[in-house]
Amino acid sequence: MTQATTQASAGATARPFFEQHREILKRALQAIAERSYWSAYPESPSPKVYGEGAAAEGEAAFRALLGKDFPLDQPGTTGWVASESSPFGVELGVRYPHPDVDALVAAAQAGMPAWRDAGPQARVGVCLEILHRLHRNIFELANAVQFTSGQAFVMAFQAGGPHALDRALEALAYAYAEMTRTPTKADWEKPAGKGEPLRMTKTFHVVPRGVALVIGCNTFPTWNSYPGLFASLVTGNPVVVKPHPRAVLPLAITVRTAREVLADAGFDPNLVTLAAEEPGEGMASVLATRPDVRIVDFTGSTEYGEWLEANARQAAVYTEKSGVNAIIVDSTDDFAGMCRNVGFSLTLYSGQMCTTPQNILVPSSGIATDEGHKSFDEVGAGIAGAVSKLTQDPGRAVELTGAIVNAGVLQRLDRARGIGELVLDSQAVAHPAFADAVVRTPLVVKLGAADEATYGSEWFGPISFLIATGSTEESLDVFRRTISAKGALTASVYSTDEKVLDAAEQAALDAGVHLSCNLTGGVFVNQSAAFSDFHATGANPAANASLTDGAYVANRFRIVQSRRHR
Amino acid sequence: MTQATTQASAGATARPFFEQHREILKRALQAIAERSYWSAYPESPSPKVYGEGAAAEGEAAFRALLGKDFPLDQPGTTGWVASESSPFGVELGVRYPHPDVDALVAAAQAGMPAWRDAGPQARVGVCLEILHRLHRNIFELANAVQFTSGQAFVMAFQAGGPHALDRALEALAYAYAEMTRTPTKADWEKPAGKGEPLRMTKTFHVVPRGVALVIGCNTFPTWNSYPGLFASLVTGNPVVVKPHPRAVLPLAITVRTAREVLADAGFDPNLVTLAAEEPGEGMASVLATRPDVRIVDFTGSTEYGEWLEANARQAAVYTEKSGVNAIIVDSTDDFAGMCRNVGFSLTLYSGQMCTTPQNILVPSSGIATDEGHKSFDEVGAGIAGAVSKLTQDPGRAVELTGAIVNAGVLQRLDRARGIGELVLDSQAVAHPAFADAVVRTPLVVKLGAADEATYGSEWFGPISFLIATGSTEESLDVFRRTISAKGALTASVYSTDEKVLDAAEQAALDAGVHLSCNLTGGVFVNQSAAFSDFHATGANPAANASLTDGAYVANRFRIVQSRRHR
Repeated sequence: MTQATTQASAGATARPFFEQHREILKRALQAIAERSYWSAYPESPSPKVYGEGAAAEGEAAFRALLGKDFPLDQPGTTGWVASESSPFGVELGVRYPHPDVDALVAAAQAGMPAWRDAGPQARVGVCLEILHRLHRNIFELANAVQFTSGQAFVMAFQAGGPHALDRALEALAYAYAEMTRTPTKADWEKPAGKGEPLRMTKTFHVVPRGVALVIGCNTFPTWNSYPGLFASLVTGNPVVVKPHPRAVLPLAITVRTAREVLADAGFDPNLVTLAAEEPGEGMASVLATRPDVRIVDFTGSTEYGEWLEANARQAAVYTEKSGVNAIIVDSTDDFAGMCRNVGFSLTLYSGQMCTTPQNILVPSSGIATDEGHKSFDEVGAGIAGAVSKLTQDPGRAVELTGAIVNAGVLQRLDRARGIGELVLDSQAVAHPAFADAVVRTPLVVKLGAADEATYGSEWFGPISFLIATGSTEESLDVFRRTISAKGALTASVYSTDEKVLDAAEQAALDAGVHLSCNLTGGVFVNQSAAFSDFHATGANPAANASLTDGAYVANRFRIVQSRRHR
Repeated sequence: MTQATTQASAGATARPFFEQHREILKRALQAIAERSYWSAYPESPSPKVYGEGAAAEGEAAFRALLGKDFPLDQPGTTGWVASESSPFGVELGVRYPHPDVDALVAAAQAGMPAWRDAGPQARVGVCLEILHRLHRNIFELANAVQFTSGQAFVMAFQAGGPHALDRALEALAYAYAEMTRTPTKADWEKPAGKGEPLRMTKTFHVVPRGVALVIGCNTFPTWNSYPGLFASLVTGNPVVVKPHPRAVLPLAITVRTAREVLADAGFDPNLVTLAAEEPGEGMASVLATRPDVRIVDFTGSTEYGEWLEANARQAAVYTEKSGVNAIIVDSTDDFAGMCRNVGFSLTLYSGQMCTTPQNILVPSSGIATDEGHKSFDEVGAGIAGAVSKLTQDPGRAVELTGAIVNAGVLQRLDRARGIGELVLDSQAVAHPAFADAVVRTPLVVKLGAADEATYGSEWFGPISFLIATGSTEESLDVFRRTISAKGALTASVYSTDEKVLDAAEQAALDAGVHLSCNLTGGVFVNQSAAFSDFHATGANPAANASLTDGAYVANRFRIVQSRRHR
């Protein structure tokens, strides 16, 4: 009885959210069917789009959170933790509630029956309202992403704000389509010869799996967490958000917003909670292996992703891990454009994207270009020159590179410097605005095709390899072999020869990696557009799922039916 | 280049199959969206439906296979195995090719690129033609199912023939919808302020996971194997079919037919192969744990299903396992109808269905009925009487019970006889047509709610428990607890009280089991109708997936995209 009452009162409040956001949902459903260009949240932080005061207000809201207890009134709080350390050297000092895991999970479960029984429309309405309110305070969120991830502001705004919201909306659209493809009721009438037909009414319920865990990452706390968070929540599962200890604030803001909307709609706010921890405490492993945790979403290292897949066996586990992203350079009709484009991809966020190219495969005999034949070294010099041009002015450089996210990246960079001849050395850049920020430009090291022991693993950070191969055919072999073995989130090819482009596409299908061809303009291999590009394929070791498609949402709930005679 | 040529020639032949079966696919797509009554293949074996000679011809075709090498020209054959032993005591003696597993898997993989590149339409056309040809020889298949599973003829015909084909078609429809929800091409045009828009063409490929393994069961060799087999095949994966050593023939016929159609369409017939083995050889485990086997479908014991889930970690594993199906008896307005219906459910195929009710929960104080109050013992006597009526005439009895599928069931039956007071003893029945058939009628044992150590596990076979509970409330507790812990494929409730029906529905949602209410006529809890009822939920331990829904098909392939500027 209690459940029925909760449901009725919740439904009454949740319903208007669905009506209010019906159009954006409809448009998103169209977008996932077309996969052409669409975006719901403007990516430009310009005052023309967001209003004159928006940026300053957002920054002020962010600054007001620093050095304080973050306002989250969730149950089971045993203490407060401040674990962040900004790559820009800014003192954050925000303290987050540290939970008793048993209490947190029990609280998460309490609201589940009413949330389940409210149905897909009420739930998607609540989720769309969460996105709406996050968008209303997007500059606060962007600042939180910037100062925890080390991304430059524009990137933190775009990837951490509108693009993350777009991906969340995309996940909601897939999940809504999946939940509603089965009708809620069906009349079944089976002819029975000369007798009366058999008549039944069948009712189909969307039933959640159980508590969902989202394990956030350091570099893209919102973008990589939102699809799983919203896909799980909208399908009826309570969500425990376990942020990376160095990037808590963006997800704390997200959880705060979600709890507000849930409460406003008459649902239990504990359906979304934050599980902040001390660094090294291992709370993710404790949560992920609980019998009542039934979904896990993770972005991070291959090592931990594989541990989750092996140990969180009671759960559906979605992982995005490491990979060896590759570029095949065969020939080009725009050498300058190619070098600019590749150089930009290496420089963006100092190569700290899961999508940054690492292995640039070039025939040792060089390539044909619109500027005549270019030797292997000239190709290296072209890319190095493009990076240098982008990074020579510190003020411009830092707006692309941002800051180095943690000490592990710096150590790796030092190690990489010693493994081969340098095509381009990494430079330290003094950040004009943040004296303590650690900024580094890309390093490019020359290797041979035989050095697979080196380039066959991920070197996360501003580290790429210019690899001399015997021919484009060998480049294709290396591409296929390394990506099949170690995975990749992105791949690209440069060629003026249709046969080579076709062969690269075949290799990409065999290795199961998305391919970009001849990018020389304003589209970069490390960027994927929500509603059009899929992120990861789930078909190679870099990820066991794609953001976001049918497979990503379909197993987050089950259909349970009942039937009775009419 | 070879691949491209194969693809072109294959496409030319496969296309007509798609055109030829376009209407049935369209109708199936409508059916899965409506989930109301529809069936593509008539379930009546009547000559009026299938023609005068069909039954005799099919039986003759079946008999012509006995005692011979089964005609399968697949590669890697190292010898021949005859492992079947008919529950009807009929000598089968069919010899099947025993494969070298390495050679079989290598052969399976060879045809994959051309099958992948042919696309969803060509593949679904081929799969629909396979169903069409299986249907054309449906009596041959029905005989094969009857004499390997021990099902009576009509059931073998229906469940093993048209119903299995319906489930296969249902899986094809879901898979086709899933593959085609993403367009093959999309134009992407992103506004770029005052500049030229960014314009790209994106191509989306359906890419299979790899070799798929289907592990068949003894009791429903076709019905339980077809959804996985066809869902994997149509999404581009080669399929290795590993039949139960005692029920090879129905799947050998299926593989033969699939290979014929593949060859006719210009594809590599080795995309579907049979992996027959000696009993106890363990070929399923060898196959399931190979790195190149990427999908496993299994029906059988919880023990082996859990072993697969734990060990075939490189694969997407879909399992249907054991469970403790339950009936809650609270009250009824049709006592005779209830007893008839439950009695029929217990008798059908001697309780050897994964859907047969095991635990009948009745308040010890009895229940209200249209015939007045009935004590606990009177409820037991009513059900026992209904079973006796159905089984008293041997000729009629065997048409319901069929034969006992293997010695394990008999041993379990003997063991069950000793654990409590008998409500109904199991009887041996002399089969009028097959002197060596082992036939047994249902056993019903009386237990108390405290005997959970006994009724909390599956007793596969003609074994059910009439369990005295303190009240319907306790029945609901037992129901929720046992099904949450051990799973169930079916559940039902009898009550005239809407509140009890609602409570049972809530319990079913919590335990994640499909519920049938007040079945007193011609629909039985152990039967599910393709295109309307889902089989299993994937939400309790009896199965990690449902036949057949979006989640069942969506992860059998991945989308790999390429993009280039226009």
